[in-house]
Parts: sequence; C-alpha cells; structure tokens
Amino acid sequence: MSKQKYAIGIDFGTESGRAVLVDVASGEEVATCVHPYADGVIDEVLPGTDIRLQPDFALQNPADYLETVKVAVPAVLREAGVNAEDVVGLGTDFTACTMMPIDEKGTPLCMKPEWRDNPYAWVKIWKHHAAQPEANELNRIARERGEEFLDRYGGKISSEWLFPKIWETLNKAPEVYEAADRFIEGADWIVLQLTGEEKRNSCTAGYKAIWEKGTGYPSDDFFAALDPCLRHVVDEKLSQDIYPLGGRAGGLTRQWAKATGLKEGTAVSIGNVDAHVSVPAATVVEPGRMVMIMGTSICHMVLGTEKQIVEGMCGVVEDGIIPGLFGFEAGQSCVGDHFAWFVDNCMPWEYHQEAKRRGLDLHRLLEEKAAQLQVGESGLLALDWWNGNRSILVDVDLIGLLLGATLATRAEEIYRALIEATAYGTCIIIETFEKSGVAVKELVACGGLPERNKLLMQIYSDVTGRDIKVAASSQAGALGSAMFGAVAAGQAAGGYDTIFEAAKYMAHLKHEVYRPIAKNEAMYDQLYAEYVRLHDYFGRGQNDVMKRLKALKQQVLAGTE
Amino acid sequence: MSKQKYAIGIDFGTESGRAVLVDVASGEEVATCVHPYADGVIDEVLPGTDIRLQPDFALQNPADYLETVKVAVPAVLREAGVNAEDVVGLGTDFTACTMMPIDEKGTPLCMKPEWRDNPYAWVKIWKHHAAQPEANELNRIARERGEEFLDRYGGKISSEWLFPKIWETLNKAPEVYEAADRFIEGADWIVLQLTGEEKRNSCTAGYKAIWEKGTGYPSDDFFAALDPCLRHVVDEKLSQDIYPLGGRAGGLTRQWAKATGLKEGTAVSIGNVDAHVSVPAATVVEPGRMVMIMGTSICHMVLGTEKQIVEGMCGVVEDGIIPGLFGFEAGQSCVGDHFAWFVDNCMPWEYHQEAKRRGLDLHRLLEEKAAQLQVGESGLLALDWWNGNRSILVDVDLIGLLLGATLATRAEEIYRALIEATAYGTCIIIETFEKSGVAVKELVACGGLPERNKLLMQIYSDVTGRDIKVAASSQAGALGSAMFGAVAAGQAAGGYDTIFEAAKYMAHLKHEVYRPIAKNEAMYDQLYAEYVRLHDYFGRGQNDVMKRLKALKQQVLAGTE
Repeated sequence: MSKQKYAIGIDFGTESGRAVLVDVASGEEVATCVHPYADGVIDEVLPGTDIRLQPDFALQNPADYLETVKVAVPAVLREAGVNAEDVVGLGTDFTACTMMPIDEKGTPLCMKPEWRDNPYAWVKIWKHHAAQPEANELNRIARERGEEFLDRYGGKISSEWLFPKIWETLNKAPEVYEAADRFIEGADWIVLQLTGEEKRNSCTAGYKAIWEKGTGYPSDDFFAALDPCLRHVVDEKLSQDIYPLGGRAGGLTRQWAKATGLKEGTAVSIGNVDAHVSVPAATVVEPGRMVMIMGTSICHMVLGTEKQIVEGMCGVVEDGIIPGLFGFEAGQSCVGDHFAWFVDNCMPWEYHQEAKRRGLDLHRLLEEKAAQLQVGESGLLALDWWNGNRSILVDVDLIGLLLGATLATRAEEIYRALIEATAYGTCIIIETFEKSGVAVKELVACGGLPERNKLLMQIYSDVTGRDIKVAASSQAGALGSAMFGAVAAGQAAGGYDTIFEAAKYMAHLKHEVYRPIAKNEAMYDQLYAEYVRLHDYFGRGQNDVMKRLKALKQQVLAGTE
Repeated sequence: MSKQKYAIGIDFGTESGRAVLVDVASGEEVATCVHPYADGVIDEVLPGTDIRLQPDFALQNPADYLETVKVAVPAVLREAGVNAEDVVGLGTDFTACTMMPIDEKGTPLCMKPEWRDNPYAWVKIWKHHAAQPEANELNRIARERGEEFLDRYGGKISSEWLFPKIWETLNKAPEVYEAADRFIEGADWIVLQLTGEEKRNSCTAGYKAIWEKGTGYPSDDFFAALDPCLRHVVDEKLSQDIYPLGGRAGGLTRQWAKATGLKEGTAVSIGNVDAHVSVPAATVVEPGRMVMIMGTSICHMVLGTEKQIVEGMCGVVEDGIIPGLFGFEAGQSCVGDHFAWFVDNCMPWEYHQEAKRRGLDLHRLLEEKAAQLQVGESGLLALDWWNGNRSILVDVDLIGLLLGATLATRAEEIYRALIEATAYGTCIIIETFEKSGVAVKELVACGGLPERNKLLMQIYSDVTGRDIKVAASSQAGALGSAMFGAVAAGQAAGGYDTIFEAAKYMAHLKHEVYRPIAKNEAMYDQLYAEYVRLHDYFGRGQNDVMKRLKALKQQVLAGTE
C-alpha cells in the first residue's frame, strides 16, 4: 500500500480564512487553522486612511487572502507533522460574488499606491449592497428586453452579483473602471496567484455573472442598453474562458511553494464557492438529495440532469456544483439571524434569570421549553420574512408577520413559531423544485445550526415530510475544497480522478437521522396550508401592505413625507 | 349660604370596594377609603372548603360587599371630619353582570349554611366565563328565531351576561335554580340591602339582561325555546319593575345607619354600573362626546337622542347611562393588558438593565423611546386582537397579528405599534357609530391609562383626528356614584334635582387637551386604511385562519388530535 496522502482545502470566508489538511483516503480532518483577516470586513474607513465609506459598503483587503495562505498552510502542515511531498493537492473556495479590479499582471488596483485611496479599487465582497440602484435598473431593462437569462435566476439579478457591482464602479468611479484591466472573482484571483493561471470557474461565472455553458454571457446589445460604455464589458474586462469545477487549474508556483512549504507544482483546483463546495462534502454528488447549508441563512442546493426553470430560484448552472450536472440553488435570507433577533429582543426577564442560574445559553433554554410544546398548541403562525424573501418570491421588500398571539402567549411559543416559519419556507422551496421537475427526496444538512438545535432539525423533518441526514464535517467548505484538491491531483498522484470518487471516500454523514413523526406531519400539513395561503396573499400581490409600509417607512426616514 | 353638604359614592370593584366622600357644591373628593375584599376573586377553591372550581369560574362572596360598606363609609366620614347630617346622599356602582341567587328575603343562597358548598349558590362575577356553551346556544336559537333584540347587542349576547349565567345554573345545578327565589345583580342587591327596597336599575337590565324600555325582556316563547324550564324565568326569577338611573331607591335603613354612622333615611340612589356611572363623572351628559374608560380594556360610551342599530356595539339602552337619553356602549377587550403582556414577555435584556439603572418603570422607558419615533417609521402594523375583538366584530376567536418586523425592529417600535393598533380599534368603533348616525365629535378619557401614558393619548388623538380631554377625577366610578347620591337627595335636601345639574358642578376636566397633530394625522390615515383592510380580511371571513388556528389549538390541548 502506498503511503498516506493528504489534500489541503482553504475556505476564504467573510471574517477569516480557514485551512484544513485532510487524509485523502479517509477524509479525516487531521489539522485545521483559522486565520482572522487583519482588516476584516471594511465597512467604515479605508485602511490606513481616514476615508469614510457609505453605509452599504462592504470591502476586503486582498492582502488578507495572501496572508491566510502564508500562515494557515504551514500551520496545518506543522500541526499534522505531514511532509510536503505527501500533500497531493490544494483546493480553495471563496465567498461570492466577491470581486475586484486588477491590472494586466493580476495585481488588485487597491494594492497599487496610486489607487489605495479609492474605495472602488478594493474588493467588494458579497454583502456590499451599494449597487442596488444598478441592479434595479438592470432588472428593469432585462425585463423590458425579454432577456431569457432572467428565468435562470428566478426573475431577478441580485445587487450582490457581478454586473451590478461592475456597473456601480463605472457609474461612481469611471477612472477605476477605465484603469481596470479586468474584473475578477476572489475565487479565481486566488487561483491565479497560486498557479499563475487565470482559469475562471463555472460556479461563480454561472451563479454570479449570468454566464451559461453553451450560450455564454448576455449579449453586447444588452450591456449597451445598460450603458454604451458597457457594450464590450465581457471582451474588455472579463474572460470568456470558463472552466468546469473538478479540474486542475495548474501547479503551485515556486514562489508560493516557498511561502507555504508545499512542493512546487502541487496540483491546485479550479476555484469554487463556499456554499457550493459544501455539497460534495455533505456526500451529495447526485440528483434527488438537497443540501441545506444552515446558518444565519439557508442555502438550498440540489442537482439535476436537465435544465429546469424553477420559480424564484437563485440560479441554475450547468457544472455549477458538480461537473456534468445542473446545479440548482435557492435560499432563505433569515434563519439563524431570525432566532438571534428574537433572543436579543423579545425575552421575558425570568428567562434571562433562569438561563443565568442554570448556566444555559438562551437559545438552549428556549429550545428546551419549545420542545415541550405540541404541534399546533401555540396557535401561532409566522411568515419568515424578517429579512425579505430570497426564494421563491425573490422580494426584499417583504417583511415579517406573526399571527395568533394572545395574552397567554409565551416566548418559547413565538420562538417555535419562528422555527416553524423557516421550515415552511424551506418546504415551499422544495415543493416548487419538485413541481418543476427537480426531485428532492432527502435532505442533508450542514453548517452551524444542525449541531446546535435538534428541535429545529426535527421540525424541518416533520414539516417537509423528509428524512434529514447531517454532514459529519463541521467545516464542509474547507473539506469540500480539499476534496477538489485531491481531484485536481488525480488518482495517479494519490488523489481521485473525479469528485464522485472523492465524495465516496472523503465525505461522511453522522449516524443520526431525523425522520418525520407521522402525527406531527399530519398537523403540520394543516399549518403549512395556512402558511401558503398567507404567503400568497401577502407575497403575490393580493395585498401589498408590506410594500406600502416599507415605502412609507423609507419616505419617513428620508424626511420627505 | 347653607352649610357644606356631602355625598358618598361606593364603587364595588373586582378586587376591592372604594368609598369616596365628595363635596356636593364643588365635586371635591374630600376623603377616600379602599377596602380589599377578604375573599377577593374566588377562582380556585370555595372559601372555607376544599371544593375546587372549574377553570372558567370567577366568584365573589357577598359578605365582602357588606363589609366594604361597614368599613369604608365610617372611614371616609372620620377622615373628612364630616357629620352624618351633612351627608345628603349615597350612591353605588358595581361591576356587571355580577349576579347571584337569593331567597325571598334577599339573602344570597351562599350565605345560607345549606348552600355554602355549592359554587352555583355564590356570586358569579362579570368575568365568570363558564356559561360560554349556554351563550353560544342562546345566540344560535335567537338567530334562528330572528329575535330582534340581537341587533341591540351587536348581534351577540355575551357569556358574561345574565341569561347565560342563569341558564348555566339551571343546567349544572338545577337545585340552585329551583331554590333561588330570584336572581339579582350585585348592583341591585346592595341597594336592596341598604334600603330594604328592590328597585332594579335600567342600566344592568338593559345592558346585561336583554331588557328594553317599552318592550321589556325577550318573550316567554324565546326562553322556552332555550329550555322549557326557562319559559317563565322572567316572572319567576326576575322582576319586571325597572327604574331609570338618577332616581332615589329609598332611604338608608336603621340597621345600616347604625353600621355606617350615617343618618337613617339618607337618600340612596338606584344602582348603577362602574363604567356607566363614570360617564357623567367625566362631564358627559349630552350626545356627541364619547367617554373612553381606559385601563386594561376600554369601554366606549356615548349618548344619543334616538335608538340606532350600530354594528358590533355592546348595547344600546334607553336610560342606560343618563335618564332620558339612549346610552351606547362599545368596547375593546385588550388595551392596558396588551402593553403589560408585551413588557412582561418581549423585552431586550439591556432595557431591563437601563430601566433598573435609571429607576424607571419599563412602560415609562418604552414610552420614552417610542415617543422619539416618527409615525410610520417602524414599518409595523398590528391588529389589537390579543384578547379577541369585542367591538365591532364581536368575536372572541380572533387573535393577534403583528406585521412588518425585520431584523432591525426594536422593542419600542413594537410597543408603539401595539398602542397604535388599539387606537385604530377605537377609531373603527367611532367611525361605525358615526356611520350609524351616532355623532362622536370629541373624546373624554378617564381611567388609569390617560394619567400614565401621554404618548398613547397623543396617538389616540392623531389616529381619531379628535380632541381628547381627560376627566379630572382618578376615581370616576366612585365620583359618579356620589353624584347620583346627590341627585337621589334632590336640591331641597342640599343635592341636585338632576344628573345634568350634578355634572355641571361636581364633574371636571383636566386643563390639558390632546389635539391631533396634522402631519401625524395624515400619516395615520394611510396606516389606518391598511389596518381596516387587514381587519376586514381576517375578521370578516375572507380568511378564517385565526379561527382555524384556535380550533387546532383547542383540539391539541384537548388531546383529541
């Protein structure tokens, strides 16, 4: 038998980067290192200056990505006591759309002294929301022109995605647009740094840049309709060469081999996105099993063999998650955030005291109390729109609803109703996929929530009527990247030839399975029917009170009433 | 000039009785004594026994009423240093419907040893809710028979009222029904005790016993349709002699003169109800000015010169508030209670800390923060149905709704939205009265809330678009009773000949007036339109989700799902 081989995955997150060194044969996570970004999320002042940012800005410093590699890779090698020659591959994943302008050599403009003081020269990360006006206009024009690509994105391009962000730069800082040789996703930029190869990945291109295998980007005419200066944005500022996931981008450069202690030429995989790379890490490489990445929000990922248009999905992309399959993505924008809001804002004094006395986290206390309630006992029903609706209504102007409170209503009843509301939200996403021909037979959960809240997991199973399994890894993103790193290396080098093979050996599930309880399922069927009726009433134009209230609020806050 | 004269008012409340001694000329409240009932509200165990009560039971011990008179009247005389000969009259008011079975001498059955162990022999107070099945059945039969009286009560007879309570006794304790010589309101019973005269008042008869001046009670046929045993309930168990408010019931008996220190023969007024007697105490003895008695709930009282049928009002009764006028009553079942629920259940930890640090009540803290919000700024809208809807939908199965929460929503925003919801509830009541020909030009507030929450008062003024004045007295019930006591005495004896005269001199308003702020009014017009739309959608059968959720809840709690 050959000597043990390893792969390294690096997950570039919002506040920090994480490297994990994984045993290729077993998937065992041998060592982990988390490196917090020195500049973190830049949303107040540009580093090293006193230049204040607008409220919707969220930037990063690309130097933090490089530093992560320099610190975290040697750290995991050291911790594991593994030799560089036994590391066969390296994979990376990134938040997205997290984009930056670079010069012809690939240097981010913000790393050049002459551009450091311009916020638009920095990395705009996924939650940079200043391009909302451009997104609104882009959607209006696309609808008017009957652009078919809208169907692939639930009818709406998000302000978080690439072209609104590029257009914002053109509008607000044309000098940066002009100076940029190209705009590039962080996911591709880091690969370019490590290998010297610019090989843009099909995941960010498909989900964030309106690119489709076969048809490519939207037409020049479409971009010209946005702004004549954008007519050739694709040719001038992007790349048309898009590579499917699962490939080898190149070998580690000498410089980076030196910096990390890895061998020159170590296989580096095509870039990937944090949520999407988690899918194979959760054992899912085939249609029919939906992965839910559950944290502050939920990403729903499912695979299919054919392109289908699904109402309100975030996107369908060929090769977007697993090469050779169509990847479908949907999402809920407010899940863990929802419960955190509730615990921060709506708790009886005695519960604070009880939690303190018993040394319990408030979430634990509420979960314990809520678990004692029977389904339907509270009489409460909520719409989970505290942060708008991402799927399937795709409407940020929707707002929360809680129905059924009485003078006897207790905090744990509301807490449970909020959990149930998010479960109904997942259920309506699943039903919409299935109605559109995308099967969802089983659910696999990963992320922080499944480990923290068993009641929530059981409710999701009861509401959706499906088994839910849980990924064994608590760092599915980094593990998934390591898996792709092993695939970049190939079997001959001690890795795997396909992500399917890698998933078979490296990805695992926990033993526990949440299964629907028949009695609860029957009750939830009734409650879900009520949810759907309210969802449609408030979400599909029968009563646009939510939009009117939000408009009124904005009018008041703008002082223009 | 004659020597100063005084009148005493006694207000028999839910937990205690209150006597006030008032200067007849000025209305000055010279002395007050509150006497807590020894047995309070009896809702767990019958006093002196280990007999447990059903959950919906709420009883009182009539001995507590007598003790109140014996303790509180001498106390106010003593405190004021007033001689008995200068007290010209005594008036009383009571909660209602608060009823009891008595023997032929007027002794409550529960005061007789042979009946003490039977819960049905005790006083059922207003919030005794065990007669709901009888009320439902009574309403069904009345509707089927097309009984016109339903229109006078917003289409529904409450389970809190007299005939459901009598019928409950017949069903559950026929031996008590049989043994009862009569059933009588506490309001009339206390007058019977003090004067030896049974002179039933037009207020409880009209508002609680389906009696109408001119036409009397419902027909024997109607009662027979409920139960053949009830055919002659009016003749056998009640009295047809009903006296308008403002009259003299009789003179104080020798025994009660001795017990209280008052003079034998002191004028005692016809009995009255706590809410209704507050109206003249709030200076209102004419049409067009609505009195709002604002506490845990709100009673809305307004006078008219003609009978009108108003959707969902609690009742219209000729001579029911002021003799010679029609008294209209409506109500909201959850106002102060609503805010108390919120403060008890839904507060951020920091606000508890801040309130503690600053030595503030939580309501004060929230009011302070909520007052800094502009109208419409929160984007929130609520339906004030945390305890059902008393007017105008008359539906206990309606439940609360909060719409518009986001992850940025703060406690003071919800608190303000709940206040606004109750203001919309009052507004819809006012509009319904006006549409039906009952003018409401100005509002006069009394009760505990107006003194405690200025923000609430301003919101009510802004929402209703009306001036709100505030009664000067903080004990309008007892003051009103004293006023009726002075009227029972008459001008010749140093009192007044009419309640109109008494109100002119004895009732006062505070100087402060809440006036609508034009800018707020315009914003509230928009929000109120949204409220009405949701009110009708959820309250008028378009979507009965609230009833279904409540039914499901009851089914679950009954363990029959």
